[in-house]
Amino acid sequence: MTAEIICIGTELLLGNILNGNARYIAEQLADLGIPHYYQTVVGDNPTRIKQVLEVAAGRSNILIFTGGLGPTPDDLTTETLADFFATPLVERAEIIADITEKFAHRGRTMSPSNRKQALLPEGAQILPNSVGSAPGIIWNPRETLTVLTFPGVPAEMKHMWQETAIPYLKSQGWGKQGFYSRTLKFWGISESELAEKAGALLDSTNPTVAPYANFGEVKLRISAKASSQAAADDLIDPVERQLRDIGGRHYYGKDEETLASVVGRLLLNAGETLAVAESCTGGGLGQMLTEIPGSSQYFWGGAIAYDNRVKVALLGVDSEDLATHGAVSDLVAQQMAAGVRSRLGTSWGLSVTGIAGPGGGTIAKPVGLVYIGVADPQGRSQSFEYRFGQTRGRAWVRLVSACSALDRLRCSIDMQ
Amino acid sequence: MTAEIICIGTELLLGNILNGNARYIAEQLADLGIPHYYQTVVGDNPTRIKQVLEVAAGRSNILIFTGGLGPTPDDLTTETLADFFATPLVERAEIIADITEKFAHRGRTMSPSNRKQALLPEGAQILPNSVGSAPGIIWNPRETLTVLTFPGVPAEMKHMWQETAIPYLKSQGWGKQGFYSRTLKFWGISESELAEKAGALLDSTNPTVAPYANFGEVKLRISAKASSQAAADDLIDPVERQLRDIGGRHYYGKDEETLASVVGRLLLNAGETLAVAESCTGGGLGQMLTEIPGSSQYFWGGAIAYDNRVKVALLGVDSEDLATHGAVSDLVAQQMAAGVRSRLGTSWGLSVTGIAGPGGGTIAKPVGLVYIGVADPQGRSQSFEYRFGQTRGRAWVRLVSACSALDRLRCSIDMQ
Repeated sequence: MTAEIICIGTELLLGNILNGNARYIAEQLADLGIPHYYQTVVGDNPTRIKQVLEVAAGRSNILIFTGGLGPTPDDLTTETLADFFATPLVERAEIIADITEKFAHRGRTMSPSNRKQALLPEGAQILPNSVGSAPGIIWNPRETLTVLTFPGVPAEMKHMWQETAIPYLKSQGWGKQGFYSRTLKFWGISESELAEKAGALLDSTNPTVAPYANFGEVKLRISAKASSQAAADDLIDPVERQLRDIGGRHYYGKDEETLASVVGRLLLNAGETLAVAESCTGGGLGQMLTEIPGSSQYFWGGAIAYDNRVKVALLGVDSEDLATHGAVSDLVAQQMAAGVRSRLGTSWGLSVTGIAGPGGGTIAKPVGLVYIGVADPQGRSQSFEYRFGQTRGRAWVRLVSACSALDRLRCSIDMQ
Repeated sequence: MTAEIICIGTELLLGNILNGNARYIAEQLADLGIPHYYQTVVGDNPTRIKQVLEVAAGRSNILIFTGGLGPTPDDLTTETLADFFATPLVERAEIIADITEKFAHRGRTMSPSNRKQALLPEGAQILPNSVGSAPGIIWNPRETLTVLTFPGVPAEMKHMWQETAIPYLKSQGWGKQGFYSRTLKFWGISESELAEKAGALLDSTNPTVAPYANFGEVKLRISAKASSQAAADDLIDPVERQLRDIGGRHYYGKDEETLASVVGRLLLNAGETLAVAESCTGGGLGQMLTEIPGSSQYFWGGAIAYDNRVKVALLGVDSEDLATHGAVSDLVAQQMAAGVRSRLGTSWGLSVTGIAGPGGGTIAKPVGLVYIGVADPQGRSQSFEYRFGQTRGRAWVRLVSACSALDRLRCSIDMQ
C-alpha cells in the first residue's frame, strides 16, 4: 500500500508559488508510516489530469489530491475524477446547507457558482471543510484504491487533514508503524569526506543514514521505521553514537539546533557572555546569535565595524596596524576581538574581517580570505585564517564566515 | 515541444524541504515561453526513476532533472539515465581535472567518491558547474528528446541554469515569444488595499497584473507575452506608471531592487553616509545593508546594542532615561540614532529598538512594539512607533522591523 500526492494548479506550473502543500502532506505521510514514492503537479486541464490519474492509479493505492475544488470554471478536480471513474455526480443537500450558512454568517448569500461545490461522485464520502466553502471527498472508486481530495488553500487543507484525514487513515490501520528521524549536524567537513568515513553505515536499512549538504553544513539524517518513538530511539541511538564518534569535533548538534543555539547553550552553562565585532559579515553574526529567543542572557551586542574608522573609534584597533597590515589580517582580527571584549566587558570577544567580494580582492588577499578572531575570558586572543574562494559569491562567503566564527567559538569554549 | 520537471530526492518525499527548485525552473520556463505541464518528484530509487522517465519521455520533449548528482552511493540520476537509454558511461578527464582543481583551491585533495561525478553518458555534453563539484549534462538520447540534469543544491542549480541552460535553450529557438515580467515592490500597504486600488488593472490580459504578498512586502507582477523585450516594455510601461501612481509613496522599487539597495542608491546620489544602532534586530539591519556589493561607500557600520550596557557604552544613551522610559521607547530610539550618528560621524543615524518576543512583553509594551529612530544630516532626530503584533513570531517581527527602518530612512532621504 503506497500513497501518491497529486497537486493541481496552474500557479504551480507557472512558478508563482512554492508547493507547500506537497511538503506538508509528505511530512504527514511519513509520520503515519504511509510509504509515498511519487508527487505530481499538473495544471487545471481535464485531459492531463486524467493522464496523471491513469499513471497514479496503476502504481499507488491512496491518491491524495490538492487544488481545483473551488467554485470557478477552471476548478475541475472533482468532475474529472468522476468522469475518469465513470461515476455520476450527485448534489449533496448537506453541502448546500453548509455553504449557505457560512455565507449567511458573513452577511452574504451563496453565489450560484458555489452550487458546483456540492456535486460529488456517487458513493463518495464528504471530507468536510470547516474553514472554507470547498469540501473534499474520501472515495473508493475501486476496491484497492482510495482517493482523498483537498482544496489548494493551505490553511483549509491542513485543517481538513488534521480533523478528518488523520482519523480516517488511522481507522484504516495506518499510524501504527511510523518513520522517526533525527538529523546530526556537522561543520568544517565536506559531505564526501564524512560519507567516506561513515562507510557502511550509509548502507544500513533500519535505520537508514542519508547525507545532505547545504551552505557549508553537512547533515546526516538517521531514519527508523518503528512502532513508537521509544522503539525508534532504540534503533537510532547506537547509530547516532557511532556517527558522532566519526564526526569528532565537526559534530555540533542535532535536529533544531543551530551553531548559534549550541554556542548559546555553552555560554549559558558556563555563565559567560559574548560580544562581537563584525566587518565583512556586517551584522550577520549578531543576527544569527539573536535569532535565539533568550539570547540576551549571554549576548550583549557589539560593533559593526564595516568602515576602518569604526574599527578605530568603537573597537580601539590601532590605526597604524590597520595601515601596515590591512583591515583583513590576523592582527586586526585579534585586535577587533580583544577590543570589543574589553570595551563591552564580556567574557568572550569574537570578530570577523574578510573580503566578501565581488570586488576588493588582490593577489595577496583574494576574495574569500577571512580572518576570525577569538578573545577568551583570560584575555588571550587568537586568530584563524580561512580561504572560502570566490566562486560561490558574496552571500555565501558572508554566511560561511559567520558560521565559521560561531563554530570556532564553540570549539574554543569546549576546549576551556 | 513541452518540458517536464523531474526532481529526485528522498528528502522531498519525506517533506524535509520545500521544492524551491521546481518553482524556480517553472518560472524560468515561463519566461522563455516553454510550455510545461507536469512536475514529478521521485526518490533516489533506480526502478522508480525509470518508471517516471518512461512516462515523461512519452509525453514531453525536454526533461529537466534536479538532484542525485552528488558523490554518494544514493546519488543515482546519471547512471539511471544512462541505463534507461542503454548508453555506456564514460569518464571525462576534464571533470576530474576541474574537481581536483576546486579541491586544491580549498587546500584539499579530491576524495575517491568524487570520481563518480566524472562519469557521464557517452554523447552527453557537460553542463558545467562553476560553483560546486557536480556537473550536469545536456543530452539528446533520442532525436526528439533533450535531457538536462542539475544538482539539487539550489545555488548551484540556479548558477548553471543562468550560465549554460538559458543560452542553450535560446540556441534551440526558445525565448523568442516569451513571457516578460516586471515586479513592482511596495512597503507599508496591505495586499488587499493595494489590490482594491488597482481595481480593473488586475483583470487585464496582456499584460496581466498579479499581486503577491510576503513578509510585509507586497509585489505586483506585470507579465506580458511579446516577441521581444522592447515589445514587452511597450505593453508594460504604461501599466507600471499607473500602478506606481496608485501605490504612491509605498512604491519603492522593482525587480532585483531591495529596500537596502534603494536606500544605498539614494545615499550614494546624495553623497551621504549611514550608521545604524540595533537592539531587537541584533545585526539584521546591518546585514541587509551590507548584502549590497559596494555598500562600504555609504554604510560605515554601527553598534549592536542588544544589552542596555552597550546602549550606554557605545551609543551614549542616557542611563537615567533608560531606567525611566525603558529601552523600548521613543526617547531611547532617538538617542540611539543620534548617538551612533555623532560617534561615527556619518550623515544619517538609524536605530531600532523593540520587543521581538516571544518573551519580554507587558500590557503597556506588548511583543511586537518597535521604535525606529532617524537622525538626519541636520542633527535632528525623530522616532516612529510600530506595533507588529505577536501572532507571526519573533523572526517576523525582527525582519519587518529592519525593513521598516530602511523604508523610514528611504522616505526621510526622499523628503530632504
